Amino acid sequence: MATDVEIALQFAPRPISEIAEKLGIEDHYLNHYGRDIAKVDLRALSHNGRQPGKLILVSATTPTPSGEGKTTTTIGLGQAFSQLNESVCLALREPSLGPCLGMKGGATGGGYSQIMPADRINLHFTGDFHAITSANNLVSAAIDNHIYHGNKLSIDPRQIVWRRVMDMNDRSLRKIVLGLGGKLQGIPREGGFDITAASEVMAMLCLAEDAEDLQQRLDRTLIGFTYEGEPVYARQLEITGAMMALLRDALQPNLVQSFEGTPAFVHGGPFANIAHGCNSVIATRMAMQYADWAITEAGFGFDLGAEKFFDIKCRIAGLDPDAVVLVTTVRALKMHGGKQKNALESEDLSAVKLGLGNLDKHIESVMLFNKQPVVALNRFATDSDAEIAIIRQRCSELGVAFAETTHHADGGKGALELARAVIGSVAQNRPFKPLYDLELTVLEKVRAVCKQMYGADDVAFTKEAAKDLQLVEQLRLTHLPVCIAKAPSSLSDDPLLHGRPRDFEVTVRAIQINSGAGFLVILTGDILRMPGLPKQPAANKMRLLKSGVIEGLE
Amino acid sequence: MATDVEIALQFAPRPISEIAEKLGIEDHYLNHYGRDIAKVDLRALSHNGRQPGKLILVSATTPTPSGEGKTTTTIGLGQAFSQLNESVCLALREPSLGPCLGMKGGATGGGYSQIMPADRINLHFTGDFHAITSANNLVSAAIDNHIYHGNKLSIDPRQIVWRRVMDMNDRSLRKIVLGLGGKLQGIPREGGFDITAASEVMAMLCLAEDAEDLQQRLDRTLIGFTYEGEPVYARQLEITGAMMALLRDALQPNLVQSFEGTPAFVHGGPFANIAHGCNSVIATRMAMQYADWAITEAGFGFDLGAEKFFDIKCRIAGLDPDAVVLVTTVRALKMHGGKQKNALESEDLSAVKLGLGNLDKHIESVMLFNKQPVVALNRFATDSDAEIAIIRQRCSELGVAFAETTHHADGGKGALELARAVIGSVAQNRPFKPLYDLELTVLEKVRAVCKQMYGADDVAFTKEAAKDLQLVEQLRLTHLPVCIAKAPSSLSDDPLLHGRPRDFEVTVRAIQINSGAGFLVILTGDILRMPGLPKQPAANKMRLLKSGVIEGLE
Repeated sequence: MATDVEIALQFAPRPISEIAEKLGIEDHYLNHYGRDIAKVDLRALSHNGRQPGKLILVSATTPTPSGEGKTTTTIGLGQAFSQLNESVCLALREPSLGPCLGMKGGATGGGYSQIMPADRINLHFTGDFHAITSANNLVSAAIDNHIYHGNKLSIDPRQIVWRRVMDMNDRSLRKIVLGLGGKLQGIPREGGFDITAASEVMAMLCLAEDAEDLQQRLDRTLIGFTYEGEPVYARQLEITGAMMALLRDALQPNLVQSFEGTPAFVHGGPFANIAHGCNSVIATRMAMQYADWAITEAGFGFDLGAEKFFDIKCRIAGLDPDAVVLVTTVRALKMHGGKQKNALESEDLSAVKLGLGNLDKHIESVMLFNKQPVVALNRFATDSDAEIAIIRQRCSELGVAFAETTHHADGGKGALELARAVIGSVAQNRPFKPLYDLELTVLEKVRAVCKQMYGADDVAFTKEAAKDLQLVEQLRLTHLPVCIAKAPSSLSDDPLLHGRPRDFEVTVRAIQINSGAGFLVILTGDILRMPGLPKQPAANKMRLLKSGVIEGLE
Repeated sequence: MATDVEIALQFAPRPISEIAEKLGIEDHYLNHYGRDIAKVDLRALSHNGRQPGKLILVSATTPTPSGEGKTTTTIGLGQAFSQLNESVCLALREPSLGPCLGMKGGATGGGYSQIMPADRINLHFTGDFHAITSANNLVSAAIDNHIYHGNKLSIDPRQIVWRRVMDMNDRSLRKIVLGLGGKLQGIPREGGFDITAASEVMAMLCLAEDAEDLQQRLDRTLIGFTYEGEPVYARQLEITGAMMALLRDALQPNLVQSFEGTPAFVHGGPFANIAHGCNSVIATRMAMQYADWAITEAGFGFDLGAEKFFDIKCRIAGLDPDAVVLVTTVRALKMHGGKQKNALESEDLSAVKLGLGNLDKHIESVMLFNKQPVVALNRFATDSDAEIAIIRQRCSELGVAFAETTHHADGGKGALELARAVIGSVAQNRPFKPLYDLELTVLEKVRAVCKQMYGADDVAFTKEAAKDLQLVEQLRLTHLPVCIAKAPSSLSDDPLLHGRPRDFEVTVRAIQINSGAGFLVILTGDILRMPGLPKQPAANKMRLLKSGVIEGLE
């Protein structure tokens, strides 16, 4: 089969203004970034007077390290809706540049289910990540500058919780000592960098309803503590106005199209781990406002991304999906059945059967939110019919809709069966029920997620976490939803436990306060906020050809 | 008078496609960034078959810390040419975001001589600086990653000369220790950040003729040394292809317009200190290719920016200005006459007279390049006629054209006299003669600049500089031009010495090898590659209004 880049070269895009016109977005709301990309003014949100369309959430079973094609399925499904002549618009996350240069390559789907122009979207796109980096690092510069110029706020350099960010996989910046070099160079202290996707600014931008909401979030962001232990908020540094200026354009969602011309808002890309992992509320609303069907995704497996989609994003924004797709693969279930990661391509019926527990759990999890999943089997060339039959059979036993998809090779056509199943499932979905009430204690909220979503017996807090909890209570932030950071490769907090783990306890090691984003990050295990590059980074294969085409970005 | 932002709000822009059409740039070469900005495909450079237009260089006498309005004069002069119905195009540097948030505010001219849209140009613009930041930091991440994964190249962590960059005034990052935290977090070593404008990637992008040239420059960039003392170049890290991918769009010049609709290529912004301080060669060529008059500027005073413009940029690119403008102000000459910086607004005829030596020296310096300057007196509201008469008189004595300008308050109309004088001066300019031949020794080249441009008696090398010189010889790079980093506030290397210093020696403290950019950075005094924020940063006054207008960015 052709490579993603070769397929991208076959692409004959329509001008983005035509795509916008088809959606009914008036031309004067568009800010063009080349012929194929436009940002859309937020005023377009309240200007067509129609009823918002239906929302479809795409999530997945617990993924292998290479992912199960959730984004690709989302795009393929959108294209299938287009082929059925339905009015549809995608709402997706923006790729992070760091991983594109590192392990992962691009993040714009694949095969004949890509969003375009993939090279620009994967690299700098419209600069949203760079704007977030600048806004984040202005806070850091302002903190250290404030201390340097006399420290009127009495900020304790040992208790600064705000970190710098960079959109690069650079492990050497995780932990640094800065401000060295003597009296004119700042105040020595410990610090470090996270990747931009992990910035609280990213989470705030993605949860903000509008500019005013974002300004309020920035203002109330906790950045550290005084020597006396009092909290210090970003507004006290007098730079949230400048942050808003830096974020002005980044707040507008980006409109692009898929390979088959399906419109897509691609906007925001918070980690699905230490943050809530979905595209911006603004992009989701925009897609719903201008199409009968809006299709969106949530990062990693259903337990991580979709739980946060429901309990954080939907709750805050008043959204409620009308259908839920659960992507799974033969490969993933074989891994969950105990097969080694380098042996997932050969047929192994018993491994598939043993791995079904993971699918079972995620199906149950979807239902806990009052939703009825449609299982999408994203077929790979190495899958056998017999393997797929096992999964189809299990879904039938559970009374859950099942569709095999080949959208990677076939585009929207390969997801038509899935699209019909999704449309058919809408009537079975009831209004969503969050996993927990916000009035519960933090411990009760964490326990609710760990027991119901992960299948844990109970939750233990380390001493450090218990201390953090006291701080949360002291700052009167116990009403916030919890954002649990957990290994994406397991339902449990042990990354090596595949399948459907049972009889385990989740250990909470620390709690981080994201008062601007509006959630408490519950850290279990070692959570990486700054990835490293592998021995052979994807960057090593990249070339700019004379034609302007970028080779090796996939 | 109205503020810059108020003036910007009066601006009625024509679509950038009209501006391009007026220049004769075919529409298919444009990549739009909103209605008011377009990047222009490099293929447009060889596609109109006309003779390149004339080139005008705008430089200045030794500036006060707030600058003498060189950019504003350049823009005003361009507008005056437009008013005279001449075909004209500006070629300017892009502002750096860091200083916009710090001491300096925006850098898009002022009053009725601004380039537009000032807010976008001052903040992220088309993302060129961000792309350069990414490309620069990919090198750093690749270096530390290479060492982490076994260090096949045997890179000595103590001898890495490549630094990370950020477009932020953040003094705390000047000197850091990175890679802390144990075995999984990298290799501990000393490092630090410069501001993006100081990145060698910026200098390379600005000196590159095209993508191929840039690729070669990146490949040959020195990044450090092995334990055995052998040089290590960027190409050995196998990431220059990815750097090119990251820089693909940044290499295209940005087309905007001035307040009065004069076209302007705004592209690249290297420091005028540790780098050569002018916009990209590509932007200058593009302006010359599509207009009869291209007007460009060189950073800081003539001794720093224009010397490098001639000896580095013009020599490498085969350019030769047809006229030279020397901007001066009553304020600057009063400072050079010994007046305190907070007392420059009150009339002081004797201070002006005492300060004339600085102007004299710069006029002589222009002539050393075989050029005949036109002195532009950028009039401030606080200047008295008597003060200006003194300067006019001196120019007359020296046989040098003089024009008073009021373009800040009056737009192009305020620079008509200057425009006529510039046009009149063209016939008096001969082909430029560099200050030194490249075949000379490094010491001879440095001496030539220090004696002729700065008026020094001689040059001394510290022991460290002498050692650096040996290295330059060892790497066979003695043929490169010299890029002298010196205090911008004085003709000498002592920042406090105003006027026309005499009887001084310049001390060279170190030499840095920029093998990619193609020059040797000769460091005199303490040169800051990363500014800090002042006690009250400009960022503190910035606000995003509901209308989308950014307040406080000027």
